[in-house]
Order: sequence, then structure tokens, then C-alpha cells
Amino acid sequence: MSLVILKIGGSVITKKDSVSRPRKDEIDRISKEIASYVTENEVTDKLVLVHGAGSFGHPQAMRYNLNEKFDTKGVYEIHKSVKELNSIVVDSLNDAGVNALPVHPLSSLLLENGNIVDSSPEKFNLMLERGAVPVFHGDVVMDRIKGAAILSGDRITPYLSVMLGASRIGAGSNVDGVIDDTGSVIKKISPPGFVDMKKHISGSSSTDVTGGMLGKVSEFVELSRVGVSSRIFNASKKGMVTKFLYGEDVGTLIADK
Amino acid sequence: MSLVILKIGGSVITKKDSVSRPRKDEIDRISKEIASYVTENEVTDKLVLVHGAGSFGHPQAMRYNLNEKFDTKGVYEIHKSVKELNSIVVDSLNDAGVNALPVHPLSSLLLENGNIVDSSPEKFNLMLERGAVPVFHGDVVMDRIKGAAILSGDRITPYLSVMLGASRIGAGSNVDGVIDDTGSVIKKISPPGFVDMKKHISGSSSTDVTGGMLGKVSEFVELSRVGVSSRIFNASKKGMVTKFLYGEDVGTLIADK
Repeated sequence: MSLVILKIGGSVITKKDSVSRPRKDEIDRISKEIASYVTENEVTDKLVLVHGAGSFGHPQAMRYNLNEKFDTKGVYEIHKSVKELNSIVVDSLNDAGVNALPVHPLSSLLLENGNIVDSSPEKFNLMLERGAVPVFHGDVVMDRIKGAAILSGDRITPYLSVMLGASRIGAGSNVDGVIDDTGSVIKKISPPGFVDMKKHISGSSSTDVTGGMLGKVSEFVELSRVGVSSRIFNASKKGMVTKFLYGEDVGTLIADK
Repeated sequence: MSLVILKIGGSVITKKDSVSRPRKDEIDRISKEIASYVTENEVTDKLVLVHGAGSFGHPQAMRYNLNEKFDTKGVYEIHKSVKELNSIVVDSLNDAGVNALPVHPLSSLLLENGNIVDSSPEKFNLMLERGAVPVFHGDVVMDRIKGAAILSGDRITPYLSVMLGASRIGAGSNVDGVIDDTGSVIKKISPPGFVDMKKHISGSSSTDVTGGMLGKVSEFVELSRVGVSSRIFNASKKGMVTKFLYGEDVGTLIADK
């Protein structure tokens, strides 16, 4: 038995240019793709899902700059909104036949200057042992230094992979993988070649709220050194989630060998 | 600065003979009573709220006997329902001016055979330090032995009072306090007299899902030995919540001296 962590980006499941607008069709399609894997008798892998907040979190987070000033009203408004998206996702998964259970980071995690320092993972392991699929989401979380801080799904994923002992990670976004400066998908990234490859990764100079593509790749390269392989792939393309889950060659593989 | 834990029974805030019916007027009234206390300048006490599940939890828990068999669908249905009630309560509190934040036990607590064994309380202390009022609720929680089990608000309250170091507890139900066999409210219960008093406590022979009145009183007597005083009072009567918060003599006092 091994553990797979699948992260679905907020841009895949929400409409990014509006406030709190889910892509219900896409959520249901992805739920069915996940169900076709987890309900397969031969599959013994355990699965953890993490999803981004998209338009259920970013506009709300912009309104309250929690890095500047702790504000309970802001924490509650952001949390309430991302929980609404999480309920849509978990309902959809259950309707598709996945035994999904929500996990809300504000209630379960603790940060220190933006980094997760406490999670008490035993309850998540119990969910996995009992055949459930825990579904985490981007959220606002209490922080020892800042009071509270935004915790993106991209930050939760590598943390959980170490804490719960994942063997592989899938990061499903709306791009085909890691793109080089000629516009092609890089098929594989390994620690030895990563330093030279860095400057050829498209968008490596830009930064966004979640650290951008280069930040994500850097974390996955570090994880590959401890035996966790990752794939960055396009979850907006039909069938790709299922292909990833079955171990097919999709997007960019980040692995030690 | 001291910490007060206020528990509001599910029968106060929901209609017990139906499924998922909130008493919105009562919730709003109690929110205003709490707001009149926490927004008072001279008040420096910290406050934690715990509410029962009432008709948002009991009918759902009856449908899935989680003690007999772990069932992810049942866990999710119960959890989703009690979160709905919690959202109504936390929205109402925020509307009244209380800086309330929800805490969902399924995401934050762990049980062993029905008893809480892990809670990682630091994040709740951070909420309190930042002036927020954490709002817990009866929920279904993962359990090392049973897989999952119902955790009532009545069980959460004494645990949190020890874990977070409360100085006093209020248990607001829809009865006037602990009633003796003549129908009168017992004004005070202390550890020395409790053994003799036990058999005169009304309803002591009946048991319900939460252990009944005698179970509640017994836990509070134990807490009084370590310096935590409690009051069991009628939160369905207007003004009683405010009176309790301001330390007035309402209902039955359970204290060491």
C-alpha cells in the first residue's frame, strides 16, 4: 500500500476572474475521474486530496491583508468562503462514489511565519486506514508570529507528503507541465540537472501568492531527494487526472532517477 | 485575565422534534447577550463557546450507528449537518459583534474509545490571545478504537476547560439547573456533599446520549476539585446568559467551596 497526494489547483475548479464562482462541471468531471480510480478493486493505494481556493480565497484574501494586521472578521470571511468551495468539492466526490471527508486547515494546522509547524496527523492516518479520502484546502490558518496567514494548497501538499509518507504527488493545474523558454513541456526534472535547468523554466522570474512555478518545482525537487516523485500536469484536460492516478506519463515528472 | 467556557445545549438553539431546524430567534438573542458582555470595555475575560448539535446531529447520528460500524458516508452526513448549525451560530455571533471563529472537532480532535486524547490546543490559545472567540460544536470525530464516534458538546466542555485552563464553566440548557426530587433547583453542589446528594438528583437514573444530568454534574464536581467552578442554568430564559457571564448567581453552582 502506498499513498498518493493529488493537488487540484484553484484555477481548475473555480473561475478566477470572479468572486466565489465554482466550475461545477469541471469539479464533477474530476470527481468522476478520481472515482474511476479509487473504486477499482485492484487499486490499494491510499489517496489524499488537496485543492486550491481560487476565486473563493484570493479576492477575499486581497480585501484583508492579514500579513499587515490580524483581523478576526477577515479570517472568518476567508475561511467561510473556502469552506463553501470545499463543500462543493466533497459533495461532488461523495456523489461520484468517493468516500471523501473534509479537513479544514484553520481547525487542524498551526503555522509559524507561514510554515506548518503542527498538524497532529494521526486523525488523517485513521481516515486513510478506514478507507476515507481526506480533502484539504487552501485556507487561513493561525500563525505564531503573524496571528493568522494564508496557507495555499501548494504549501499543504509537500508538508502532507512528508508527514503522511506519500510515495508520489500529482499537482494538477491548467498548464501542461513545467514549460521551458522555447514553450515546450519539460518531460523530466531531476536534482542533478535542476540548477542548470532553473533559468530555462518559463515564468521563473515572476512571483505570485503561492511562490510561482519555480517555487513549486524547487519543493518537488527537494522531495524527490527523499524518494517522493511528483508530476505537474494539466488537470483541465479530460482524462489526465485518471492517467496520473494510474501512473501514466503525464506532464512533467520530477524524480530522483 | 481568566477564561470562561460557555456551553449552549442543542435543545436551546434547535427544534428537537424535527430534523435540522434551528431556533434562529434564540440563537440571535443569545448572540446579543454574549456580545453585550464581550464588547464591554472593562471585561478582560477570554471566552470559548461550545454548542450542542440538537436536531442537526441526533437524527443523523441515529441513522448511522457509528458505534456498530464505521461508515464514511455517515461521518460526512453528520459532520456536514452540524457544521451547518455551527455556521448559523458563528454568523449570528459575528453579526452581533462577537469576533467568533469556528472550530470543527472532526478536523481538530482525536478520540480513543470516545475520550479526547489529542487536540493540539496551541491554535485555540492563539485565537484567544488575538481576541477571537473559538466556537466548538458537537461533532463526529475519528477514534483510535471505533473508527469514528459522536463527541457531544457536553464532552468537549470539561476537556477544553482543563486543556485551556478555564476558571469557570457555564452550561446553558433548557432547565433551571440541577433539580432535586422535590422539584426544586439545587443552589449549590460541592464535592463533600455530592455522594449523599446524588440519589436526590432528578433524572439521575435515566441516561441519554450525552450521559444525562448526573453525568454532567459528576464531571463538574471533579472539575471543582481542581478549582474550576461551573453553573448549570437555563439559557432559554432571556437574560440568563448575560447574568452567567457577569458572574451572577444563576441556576446551580458547582464549586469546591
